Amino acid sequence: MAKDKKMVEAITSMEEDFAQWYTDIVKKAELVEYSGVRGCVILRPSGYAIWENIQKELDARFKATGVENVYMPMFIPESLLNKEKDHVEGFAPEVAWVTHGGSEALQERLCVRPTSETLFCDMYSKIIESYRDLPKLYNQWCSVVRWEKTTRPFLRSLEFLWQEGHTAHATAEEAEERTQQMLNVYADFCEEILAIPMIKGRKTDKEKFAGAHATYTIEALMHDGKALQSGTSHNFGDGFANAFDITYTDKENKLQHVHQTSWGMSTRIIGAIIMVHGDDSGLVLPPRIAPTQVMIIPIQQKKEGVLEKANELKSALSNFRVKVDDSDKSPGWKFSEQEMRGIPMRIEIGPKDIEAGQAVLVRRDTGEKSVVSLSDLPSAVDELLLQIQNDMLAKARAHRDSHTYEATDYEVFKETVANKPGFVKAMWCGELACEEKIKEDTGASSRCMPFEQESISGSCVCCKKPAKSLVYWGKAY
Amino acid sequence: MAKDKKMVEAITSMEEDFAQWYTDIVKKAELVEYSGVRGCVILRPSGYAIWENIQKELDARFKATGVENVYMPMFIPESLLNKEKDHVEGFAPEVAWVTHGGSEALQERLCVRPTSETLFCDMYSKIIESYRDLPKLYNQWCSVVRWEKTTRPFLRSLEFLWQEGHTAHATAEEAEERTQQMLNVYADFCEEILAIPMIKGRKTDKEKFAGAHATYTIEALMHDGKALQSGTSHNFGDGFANAFDITYTDKENKLQHVHQTSWGMSTRIIGAIIMVHGDDSGLVLPPRIAPTQVMIIPIQQKKEGVLEKANELKSALSNFRVKVDDSDKSPGWKFSEQEMRGIPMRIEIGPKDIEAGQAVLVRRDTGEKSVVSLSDLPSAVDELLLQIQNDMLAKARAHRDSHTYEATDYEVFKETVANKPGFVKAMWCGELACEEKIKEDTGASSRCMPFEQESISGSCVCCKKPAKSLVYWGKAY
Repeated sequence: MAKDKKMVEAITSMEEDFAQWYTDIVKKAELVEYSGVRGCVILRPSGYAIWENIQKELDARFKATGVENVYMPMFIPESLLNKEKDHVEGFAPEVAWVTHGGSEALQERLCVRPTSETLFCDMYSKIIESYRDLPKLYNQWCSVVRWEKTTRPFLRSLEFLWQEGHTAHATAEEAEERTQQMLNVYADFCEEILAIPMIKGRKTDKEKFAGAHATYTIEALMHDGKALQSGTSHNFGDGFANAFDITYTDKENKLQHVHQTSWGMSTRIIGAIIMVHGDDSGLVLPPRIAPTQVMIIPIQQKKEGVLEKANELKSALSNFRVKVDDSDKSPGWKFSEQEMRGIPMRIEIGPKDIEAGQAVLVRRDTGEKSVVSLSDLPSAVDELLLQIQNDMLAKARAHRDSHTYEATDYEVFKETVANKPGFVKAMWCGELACEEKIKEDTGASSRCMPFEQESISGSCVCCKKPAKSLVYWGKAY
Repeated sequence: MAKDKKMVEAITSMEEDFAQWYTDIVKKAELVEYSGVRGCVILRPSGYAIWENIQKELDARFKATGVENVYMPMFIPESLLNKEKDHVEGFAPEVAWVTHGGSEALQERLCVRPTSETLFCDMYSKIIESYRDLPKLYNQWCSVVRWEKTTRPFLRSLEFLWQEGHTAHATAEEAEERTQQMLNVYADFCEEILAIPMIKGRKTDKEKFAGAHATYTIEALMHDGKALQSGTSHNFGDGFANAFDITYTDKENKLQHVHQTSWGMSTRIIGAIIMVHGDDSGLVLPPRIAPTQVMIIPIQQKKEGVLEKANELKSALSNFRVKVDDSDKSPGWKFSEQEMRGIPMRIEIGPKDIEAGQAVLVRRDTGEKSVVSLSDLPSAVDELLLQIQNDMLAKARAHRDSHTYEATDYEVFKETVANKPGFVKAMWCGELACEEKIKEDTGASSRCMPFEQESISGSCVCCKKPAKSLVYWGKAY
């Protein structure tokens, strides 16, 4: 019983301590377990199954755009990492170094990939010869390592799982198009599958990826009003192509440099799912990503016919991801477990229900109960899961919109950041100095220059000089 | 045209130089590209897509037996690796060591996992408490690193992709049952999907896994008569459980150690596919694992209606993995490419065929052509792919059987190993000394003690003392 007890012990309330609430959920919903290496967590079945569903869905969306998967080595020779100057400056301080193989010291040390631009570039320089070889639309699913000082499960860890797409194109236009296309793939996936609305925009130069010409981002707002960068897509222009000498002969037989992109999404997005949808009873998973969509919980399961009926319902619902909890715990424990694990819906079925030819459906997101005739069950479940999915998106959008503020005056800006967690929209002159001052004064960083630009004032919120663009600002994970 | 030329340049013949033939295929079928790190290859789309299909099929078979996926960190602290004595002795000489994170030297060095028994054991010691927590049936898909001296793509590399299953059970019987169950999953998968027949058996103590009580193996015979260990399943008994203190309270509230297994299959199996089925025109892929099953090649594709018809056929064959090669190469080039890449079938369709309402089907495995009415195409393709799959298995089995010899006399044994590449079945006394002498004298190692034991003689082929078991011997990759 010790195990059961832990499960239903109340978790810390989000209002009381959001960070502790988060830590409680990842542990008690059994998403992760800590390992013996600082900052490296174990993804347990409940956590990894979410990632498997993310992979399956994203991978299909990538492939629909012509992307092919590859696998690159995890080691990068130091000399290769050093080839693109901005890139190595961005990553060298946070890589893990392999210095010995077996008992021998290596002649050149190898870093464990923090990202694989250099490896893809090295390969592209070998396999691209003519315009016929373009575009190359490659992606890989792998883990990467960044030697972070402070870590939190999913949000920031030494090792994390992700995908990284790397493409090479004949023209700058094609590369730009692909960069935006993949950002849209991410944003659509997050909205449609994870029920998380995204702000799409461009990073400032200060915040862009090391070595990129332009970085596009999708930014989500967590329940506590902090932003989370959820996916990025980079246009490298021909910068890496110059550094790595990646050329092709065009139709006129002239040598040209390719234009490149890269784009990535990681297990960090699971942190977003937790912090956008979760509540004080635990995780709340959108039906489309939930490894288990429906948990059938028999009531008085020792009575004749109850377990049989529960299993019968499971068979009738084989279009969905359904389980029966037939463990010897009490229904109350089972309810709490199902809620903690974020399973979108439970079906309660007991002797009285069977007699009445009905079952009780309970929504995880609202707690709302409904009684459904057993003959209508499959269609009722189908409709309710869709309703939950839609409502979760609407709720997340409403939360974000009601926590998005505008400021045209610097005092108002500072006050808003200090007192109203959320996004602040404000105009910016485009100067690094103002961006740094804002960060320094308020702790808010520039999240992005949204694609949907508005002009809420003619002057920079900080320096009052003429504004160049609207920026979303916010404190961020 | 430089690219086309490379593609159809003849590869080395297998009879002339099998090793070079192998290397030619992995490169020219574009399965791999070499990377800047010794012994680490890049899996290109054609190679990785085979692995994706292997993963999909194996993963479904694992999950059907109750297995759940997890992800463990790639780093193992040195102290953790050292916990099980036999295990560390087996692996320490061939691990890569991370000694620095960013610019700081680590207090304890970390090895990049060569296999993850120690990590799983450490986790199990934390999460298993009672009999209710058992069994644990976990698996992970990941890459591992072993600092090998000599490497060959797929067969032996510094880093390779695999899956490793790790289970914990209440009883020794359950662990033994699971060990054999997973070996059967591997063997069935190889026969049914890869068309590779396997010898199932037990490894001798000399050849078993570091730290295991018993190792079971599936052994395949390559076209050159060498054996390839293709998958292994280990019963650890309670050895690791003792070293890592993995205990549970049983129903009588007594503390017991768990019993464990592990089992793995890697990208090495792609080497087996190449070396069992390939020929002098390139790769030959069994239909069930081929990323592309059918290549439609238009003849005189610039003539009106030809490309349209080719695409129409593709739509009609949407139940299969079909592509149209509409590049501007000649049909001859396209045939060679399709053959080199091992695509199981091609369909030739030109103006005359269209007029006659037919298409030409060409089998990759035999080169056999057949003319099929367009209205029968989907069923004809279905039947032919099945036929190819079955014939490839039958051919591989016939090759193996005709290259499996018996020896009851040591002179005959030595002569057979020296002159007849293949398996040699012979009786063994069970002594390490004989096993080592045979290896020393002939270069053949013990492959396994097959589950299907026969008694072909009463005495050890080497020392003539009473025999304990039949052993398959052979030179191996």
